[in-house]
Amino acid sequence: MKAANGRLRLGVVGLGRLGKRHAENLAYRVPGAALVAACSPVEEERAWAREALPEPRLYDDYADLLADRDVDAVWLVTPSSLHAQQIIDALRAGKHVFCEKPLSLDLAECERVLAEAARYPHLQATIGFMRRFDPSYKDAFGKIESGAIGRPFLVRSQTTDKNDDDGFFVRFAATSGGIFLDCTVHDIDVARWLLGKPRAKRVFAAGAVALHEGLREFGDVDNGVAICEFEDGKLAMFYASRTQAHGNDTHSEVIGTAGALAIGHNPRANRVEIYDASGIRNECTPSFFDRFEDAFLHEARAFVAAVQGGGGAGTRTGAQVGATLADALEATRIGMALRQSLQSGEAVVL
Amino acid sequence: MKAANGRLRLGVVGLGRLGKRHAENLAYRVPGAALVAACSPVEEERAWAREALPEPRLYDDYADLLADRDVDAVWLVTPSSLHAQQIIDALRAGKHVFCEKPLSLDLAECERVLAEAARYPHLQATIGFMRRFDPSYKDAFGKIESGAIGRPFLVRSQTTDKNDDDGFFVRFAATSGGIFLDCTVHDIDVARWLLGKPRAKRVFAAGAVALHEGLREFGDVDNGVAICEFEDGKLAMFYASRTQAHGNDTHSEVIGTAGALAIGHNPRANRVEIYDASGIRNECTPSFFDRFEDAFLHEARAFVAAVQGGGGAGTRTGAQVGATLADALEATRIGMALRQSLQSGEAVVL
Amino acid sequence: MKAANGRLRLGVVGLGRLGKRHAENLAYRVPGAALVAACSPVEEERAWAREALPEPRLYDDYADLLADRDVDAVWLVTPSSLHAQQIIDALRAGKHVFCEKPLSLDLAECERVLAEAARYPHLQATIGFMRRFDPSYKDAFGKIESGAIGRPFLVRSQTTDKNDDDGFFVRFAATSGGIFLDCTVHDIDVARWLLGKPRAKRVFAAGAVALHEGLREFGDVDNGVAICEFEDGKLAMFYASRTQAHGNDTHSEVIGTAGALAIGHNPRANRVEIYDASGIRNECTPSFFDRFEDAFLHEARAFVAAVQGGGGAGTRTGAQVGATLADALEATRIGMALRQSLQSGEAVVL
Amino acid sequence: MKAANGRLRLGVVGLGRLGKRHAENLAYRVPGAALVAACSPVEEERAWAREALPEPRLYDDYADLLADRDVDAVWLVTPSSLHAQQIIDALRAGKHVFCEKPLSLDLAECERVLAEAARYPHLQATIGFMRRFDPSYKDAFGKIESGAIGRPFLVRSQTTDKNDDDGFFVRFAATSGGIFLDCTVHDIDVARWLLGKPRAKRVFAAGAVALHEGLREFGDVDNGVAICEFEDGKLAMFYASRTQAHGNDTHSEVIGTAGALAIGHNPRANRVEIYDASGIRNECTPSFFDRFEDAFLHEARAFVAAVQGGGGAGTRTGAQVGATLADALEATRIGMALRQSLQSGEAVVL
Repeated sequence: MKAANGRLRLGVVGLGRLGKRHAENLAYRVPGAALVAACSPVEEERAWAREALPEPRLYDDYADLLADRDVDAVWLVTPSSLHAQQIIDALRAGKHVFCEKPLSLDLAECERVLAEAARYPHLQATIGFMRRFDPSYKDAFGKIESGAIGRPFLVRSQTTDKNDDDGFFVRFAATSGGIFLDCTVHDIDVARWLLGKPRAKRVFAAGAVALHEGLREFGDVDNGVAICEFEDGKLAMFYASRTQAHGNDTHSEVIGTAGALAIGHNPRANRVEIYDASGIRNECTPSFFDRFEDAFLHEARAFVAAVQGGGGAGTRTGAQVGATLADALEATRIGMALRQSLQSGEAVVL
Repeated sequence: MKAANGRLRLGVVGLGRLGKRHAENLAYRVPGAALVAACSPVEEERAWAREALPEPRLYDDYADLLADRDVDAVWLVTPSSLHAQQIIDALRAGKHVFCEKPLSLDLAECERVLAEAARYPHLQATIGFMRRFDPSYKDAFGKIESGAIGRPFLVRSQTTDKNDDDGFFVRFAATSGGIFLDCTVHDIDVARWLLGKPRAKRVFAAGAVALHEGLREFGDVDNGVAICEFEDGKLAMFYASRTQAHGNDTHSEVIGTAGALAIGHNPRANRVEIYDASGIRNECTPSFFDRFEDAFLHEARAFVAAVQGGGGAGTRTGAQVGATLADALEATRIGMALRQSLQSGEAVVL
Repeated sequence: MKAANGRLRLGVVGLGRLGKRHAENLAYRVPGAALVAACSPVEEERAWAREALPEPRLYDDYADLLADRDVDAVWLVTPSSLHAQQIIDALRAGKHVFCEKPLSLDLAECERVLAEAARYPHLQATIGFMRRFDPSYKDAFGKIESGAIGRPFLVRSQTTDKNDDDGFFVRFAATSGGIFLDCTVHDIDVARWLLGKPRAKRVFAAGAVALHEGLREFGDVDNGVAICEFEDGKLAMFYASRTQAHGNDTHSEVIGTAGALAIGHNPRANRVEIYDASGIRNECTPSFFDRFEDAFLHEARAFVAAVQGGGGAGTRTGAQVGATLADALEATRIGMALRQSLQSGEAVVL
Repeated sequence: MKAANGRLRLGVVGLGRLGKRHAENLAYRVPGAALVAACSPVEEERAWAREALPEPRLYDDYADLLADRDVDAVWLVTPSSLHAQQIIDALRAGKHVFCEKPLSLDLAECERVLAEAARYPHLQATIGFMRRFDPSYKDAFGKIESGAIGRPFLVRSQTTDKNDDDGFFVRFAATSGGIFLDCTVHDIDVARWLLGKPRAKRVFAAGAVALHEGLREFGDVDNGVAICEFEDGKLAMFYASRTQAHGNDTHSEVIGTAGALAIGHNPRANRVEIYDASGIRNECTPSFFDRFEDAFLHEARAFVAAVQGGGGAGTRTGAQVGATLADALEATRIGMALRQSLQSGEAVVL
């Protein structure tokens, strides 16, 4: 199933802003990978691919890409509502599949994908919770595994975006699933991963519309807070925001019985500090992509290495290679409970 | 009502660890104050006072101190269960009163104190939420007032202690009111103060016993998390812990529509950084007293200045002089709701 | 020689900006001290003393203050050119003496003071290098003594001021001794103190006029850099500046064979961090007084405690109580060599 | 001169530790580059290349690589003493050349290379001062160009290594040129680059042997400090060390008339902070390669982009594409003056 030279032949599907980044990584920065195909229904995006990528075969129809015998794996960066069926179709076509988060905003759909995937155990199916591949998150995971903080029992994690006056996410509110399913889903996955995958028992959420009144009609908020109780006395606190002034500020803390770790607390853009009349400051990462650029790259390398049968540089012995479909299902389940709690004002038992 | 030289004549009541610190401040570091009396039922504490303080009159009975005509104000650092009645007694004796937090762990008692205090409008009655006097918290308050972060809508605040293997607080659990009434009450006051005193609408709390199993019999935890929803879409998140490895780590963040402020995020013990094989580190404040030593002093200065009719160095135009009895009542009300939520697993509507 | 109540009776001499601060400390914040007298030739300053201090006897002539039998110690905050003779006069009058740095800008004068002081071994004579009393510097000193960084061999230290458009120090240039004797003298003392008082062997200095052209006529600069070689292979690097944008930024590093310590690297004004569109920042201490307010207080307490025969709260077993006259002489000697090197362009051997 | 597909065909020369890293970058991470050849006299290194690189032609003799018509550019990661002649040979063979620093430790040799290169203006010849390509250094350079700190007049820069008990650099001392030519040469280049390439006028240096006594016989030290005076009142201070406990700590500061920039002050290994009984800490980059991994990559991309005639992603409009031979000559000239000053104890005029 590999190219003559042993490289995994990939087809990327979806060439929006994030899709382009994935495509460039797969094309130029992942040893062992060959980006041989790309698919988008948008002519401008295919034109970009023609220019920027190393001569992939271009498709406007996903079915055609799946029919391409020289594609070993597909890389889905498509609208969330398409993910579940596209994963199933890819597996049925015999292709490994990487899919951006979320798996689906519908639990039944999530379960349908899991059931189908169980029929293809030889195929890799991974959901893109890239934070697991960020070098700092990975370092923290390793330290926890080595016992550095004793038994971890509390994660505090946040996903906050620089305020976007343009209001893109307001227009997107009808299909985003709301702030918890769109943003906090990452923190949910991080909490489960760092706490040893405990089962969630109960959640509570609240929120505020700080700036974007347009969200009210969708029952959504631009700032949300939540608590998640897991079994075994483990806990998580989440914060999500669309309205930060200073940049994308995504960070997590893990608190254990013998110490704690903070990952990315100050979202420094780089190593520069500026001294002027306003004090001493650092600039911040403007967007999640700036913050997680390396994570996306390591994620791609780890996927390719996993398919090729080795741990590869992107993996750590004993560590999961990215989020499984089951992880993604659980993240959706918790995220939906958070949304329900936000809207009902009551704690939700899972 | 003042000493011949215009100084406010104070009597301190309770000379435990914290009482001693208050007494030393009042005796030596508060311009305009004279510590003329001290009261403790414990002989060792009175012996300490004889040695360490500038010749105060010593009492073993609170009633005798109240009968002392040359005492203008009392400073209560006594067990929480005594606060309410001692405040009432002091007011009836015509004395200004400062009382360490909490006002009471019983709402009816709180209300009884407020009713009584309403009869003595010329007497100052303040509850010791010293965090309001910490220079950094005050700076943040001033910045918020000046509009630096737009409209503040979310406070995240924590009170966490270095783990005490001795388990003092476990023995204290029967009367402490639990982690939220003992620790988080400070964060509740901070949140209300920084958010403009909104009314609380609903709370949810959860917790974990990380290390101190003995707490379970009291329905208490050694780590607690909580969300508080206020009116007008304002929110607070709280974290309290008895089990930190690195020190007392008390900090707060205020998030507004145009920026945010973090107060004390890294609880640096001082300005030293240590470079060695473990990396670059700073040591942390071991206890709340090390962290808030200055705050206790400014609090005392502000109380004395307030009684003497001026703003004094410790006050800021437009700023409240410390927490009122009504603030303390509200903090207790919210703290009790948190405890109820912790124990019921349900959101509590106020 | 003490007041009836055992307090050391002090007279402050010089009530300029810094003198006022010293006077307030001695009057209100130093247990065991009584500020009983103040001296200034300036009527406005004496008027301030009448208002702000606790009824000291006021003098316009230093000789009259020295004649006051009820003054045990004098506290000199006068122009540098007067220091030497005023110290000698105080000692001859049988009074302990604290004098702000520098001892003198003239080496012969320094030596004359040392010779005279040798005749009064029962009198305390201390030069005000307050940095030794800053809690962070003291913590570093203690850590070095305890072996935390192995053998210290290099100090990097700087004294830099926020730019003063008013150009006070340009007008002061004729008598200040230049940037190294005015500013770096503190860093010289810190380096000697932290490195175990090695003898200086050779220095080199250079400088630049970044903003204040008026300094050129005095052979002075507004930014100076220097290297000092001590015996035993110990080294120091110094930086002094009058032109910083962000505030007073006074910090030091000590590098040893097993680690290093940085003291005050980020001159944070307090514990607040501001998050806004410019990034994440902290404000800085605007002036040396804001930075060293505590140090001035501890310095005063240590002096009083030393005279009263005990170590006191401000001292550490094994630590020097402030800078001796010999330390001050050595600092002046090195500072003068730096000025000579700056002006000659050549290394100067001591 | 390019491969059929437009890629620049490179041959790497020298496959030691750093050479391997360069080779991997050129092979897998530089769009537009094809690593087609590699040269090493060491069989083990060629074996590594066979395994790790994408089938380059392998040579054990540099002359053979130069004779390869399908190599457009050579990438020299060879011993310093070979650099000058290898560059000349490459240019004569019609090949672009990138060479790791230093150009040469001999000024006459440097000048011979410059003279020869002047005959081949169509060929790119760059010396590898990778710090110019570090994203943080580049950001600082851009901020200075945009006027953010006014007129820059002082650079403080250091290159310090984690102590190597193995003493590799002691054995290397005979040929390294000493600490200033081996380490500080980077800081010299940074200072010239950030200050607008002023000419050096005078230098002074001093040093200490803190741990590695074996250096004394070579007139070398394991810690060195230096001052460099440039024309126009510009200054630099340098520190180099082989004996740090915490890691490789390479950082720079640029001070201007309206502000300052610090680049990399805390050499954080990543974004993790560890909270434990020792305080709050971050781990540090262990080696220069960990610190400058990205810089080496951007350096390679910029070289390739420059040869291909475009600015490319790695360049900034108005910014120099790496250090020229003339820059490298100047860095060597200043470094040699520092060594002379260290050994003579006198300032050296250039």
